[in-house]
Amino acid sequence: MGAVTTRASGSVGTVRTRHLDLPEPVPLDCGRSLDRVRVAYETYGELSPARDNVILVCHALSGDAHAAGTGETGLGWWDGMIGPGKAFDTDEYFVVATNLLGGCRGTTGPSSTDPATGTPYGADFPVITVADMVRTERAFLDALGIDRLAVVAGGSLGGMQALDWAVTHPDQVDSIVVIASTHALHPQGVAWNAIARESIRADPDWQGGDYYGTGRTPDAGMGVARMVGHVTYLSAEALETKFHRRLQHADDIRFTITEPEFEVESYLRHQADSFVRRFDANTYLYTSRALSYFDLARQYGEGSLEQALSGVEARALLVAFSSDWLYPPSGSQEIHDALQALGKPVELHVIDAPYGHDSFLLEEARQTPLIRAFLTGATR
Amino acid sequence: MGAVTTRASGSVGTVRTRHLDLPEPVPLDCGRSLDRVRVAYETYGELSPARDNVILVCHALSGDAHAAGTGETGLGWWDGMIGPGKAFDTDEYFVVATNLLGGCRGTTGPSSTDPATGTPYGADFPVITVADMVRTERAFLDALGIDRLAVVAGGSLGGMQALDWAVTHPDQVDSIVVIASTHALHPQGVAWNAIARESIRADPDWQGGDYYGTGRTPDAGMGVARMVGHVTYLSAEALETKFHRRLQHADDIRFTITEPEFEVESYLRHQADSFVRRFDANTYLYTSRALSYFDLARQYGEGSLEQALSGVEARALLVAFSSDWLYPPSGSQEIHDALQALGKPVELHVIDAPYGHDSFLLEEARQTPLIRAFLTGATR
Repeated sequence: MGAVTTRASGSVGTVRTRHLDLPEPVPLDCGRSLDRVRVAYETYGELSPARDNVILVCHALSGDAHAAGTGETGLGWWDGMIGPGKAFDTDEYFVVATNLLGGCRGTTGPSSTDPATGTPYGADFPVITVADMVRTERAFLDALGIDRLAVVAGGSLGGMQALDWAVTHPDQVDSIVVIASTHALHPQGVAWNAIARESIRADPDWQGGDYYGTGRTPDAGMGVARMVGHVTYLSAEALETKFHRRLQHADDIRFTITEPEFEVESYLRHQADSFVRRFDANTYLYTSRALSYFDLARQYGEGSLEQALSGVEARALLVAFSSDWLYPPSGSQEIHDALQALGKPVELHVIDAPYGHDSFLLEEARQTPLIRAFLTGATR
Repeated sequence: MGAVTTRASGSVGTVRTRHLDLPEPVPLDCGRSLDRVRVAYETYGELSPARDNVILVCHALSGDAHAAGTGETGLGWWDGMIGPGKAFDTDEYFVVATNLLGGCRGTTGPSSTDPATGTPYGADFPVITVADMVRTERAFLDALGIDRLAVVAGGSLGGMQALDWAVTHPDQVDSIVVIASTHALHPQGVAWNAIARESIRADPDWQGGDYYGTGRTPDAGMGVARMVGHVTYLSAEALETKFHRRLQHADDIRFTITEPEFEVESYLRHQADSFVRRFDANTYLYTSRALSYFDLARQYGEGSLEQALSGVEARALLVAFSSDWLYPPSGSQEIHDALQALGKPVELHVIDAPYGHDSFLLEEARQTPLIRAFLTGATR
């Protein structure tokens, strides 16, 4: 079943992203439903005969189904964590990664063709939630003949999906690995996401969301959105260490308002340019909105996080990073405390790392032993 | 000489902004000079016969010459600090406030008419620095017949001007009051400013800076810029306390990508809308660039802050706020340590306050006794 064709030591080898069309419409929180949803996915490792070794990996805002191995776009986004002998060990587990609902990397999203009109959804795409993403993943796994999940794992928005899985499908999830995530984004995080969306929305090239086929895309607005995001993913300390106040031209400033003078300015512009080339602005809008909405206590607990988590049966591993100010350790601590108060198995590790939210993609070496130990406990 | 016409207890009363045209061109760091510079200003209190009681108040990015009393636009931006019996006591001092060079509130800036062409400068306005602002203030005070300053005071960019005064005019400044400021913005602050400028620059209505008279102004881009600025002026804790995750419609979310769902989103949009109505986008660009350039060590010390400050003669009062992450206390501490190592009189107070950078405008009651005690020492 795996898409592996060649294999290097520690790597799942060369992979390709595949696609599966869901047989039934996906009902959504907003009251609408989506027909003919296509899901892009990759798998690594072998499904056990008992079908009890499945790890579902959920990605963050800008990720995709290519989580591991070498694909058309290069290495997968979590290649350091998925493979033989790695944190998510493909010698033991069958790892499944999908592109989330609303995505722009193969799964149905705003840039997909609406079967009802034959044109791209654009702004007619329904507003989606993390629970809708999980519903889509559930339907996708049904189509693969997978009932239970040994693990649901993800960082950031991916961690939100793992939490939602444990709450909405308690009898189908053995354990969750929630990294650099939260049960509800804090107001400053909501504000940053609102600013990013406003930047895209205000770009005339966004055209009310219906820019497909017009030859114009809201690159400028999404570039600014990405810059905002990028700074929030890093820590002030990381920027200080990496760039200080170094100038582009070492001798002195050039007296320009519009061109980069500092290395950090040039770096941000480069980040924006490369992101704009590979990502759809509407997917950014919808995904940013979904992660801002996510709120376990509001959605499932009448305002109480403990009540929302009361039905969880999965063991939980929570990992946070000391310098992550977008998804600060306090959010993981609140989840930990609520699960512990409920007498449920949970462990929290706060890793002292200077890179901010991006630590979850950078600090693989320090996460690996935590995850391996946790999963070993899971199979005992 | 004061513009005071009526007077309430504790207030400088009703004031009006006046204007003065500088007799000579102002030379600039970029190598150009500006001809026929007009300076908008207000004064409060009475100039002593010895002309030795002058306080120059310098404003931050979005301020103006209307620092105290009641003017056409309402209360001055530092009215809580300037007046009879206040921190800057107009019973004792003659307080002068100007709109900074490059401004849009009466002093020559990008929206002013270029005398050489008869049309607004727009993007032809020269790139300016904090030192250029100070040069303009020096020329303005010359025109008023004021040689020495008892105090130069300001917060944020205003504090940078005070520092520059002490370095570039050491024999003319008795003391400086530098609040929530720094000797050089850290790279994350440089990044936020770059993002704000990029947002304005990318707005098609900016039109390369020459939007005056076209009927179109880059409101959308400047709105996003202001939102970014606003979040950086507050602390995450302040946003949490003020808004939590409260929804606009208390019953539930409305499933919208483009409209505010959370109170914090609506608040940001309101802040942006009101700012856009009163502020010129090019002034934002030029001022943001000037405060990013500001770097005492680079400009005056061959990379050494201590060397840059070695000629300072003024006594220095530094005030910082614990939750200010845009101008963190560490910047003030570095200035303090350098001055102390040089054996110069300096005191630093870090006020424990939750409001972030905006504390410097909000925590007037706690700054007042510090400033009054410091200034009493100054006249001993």
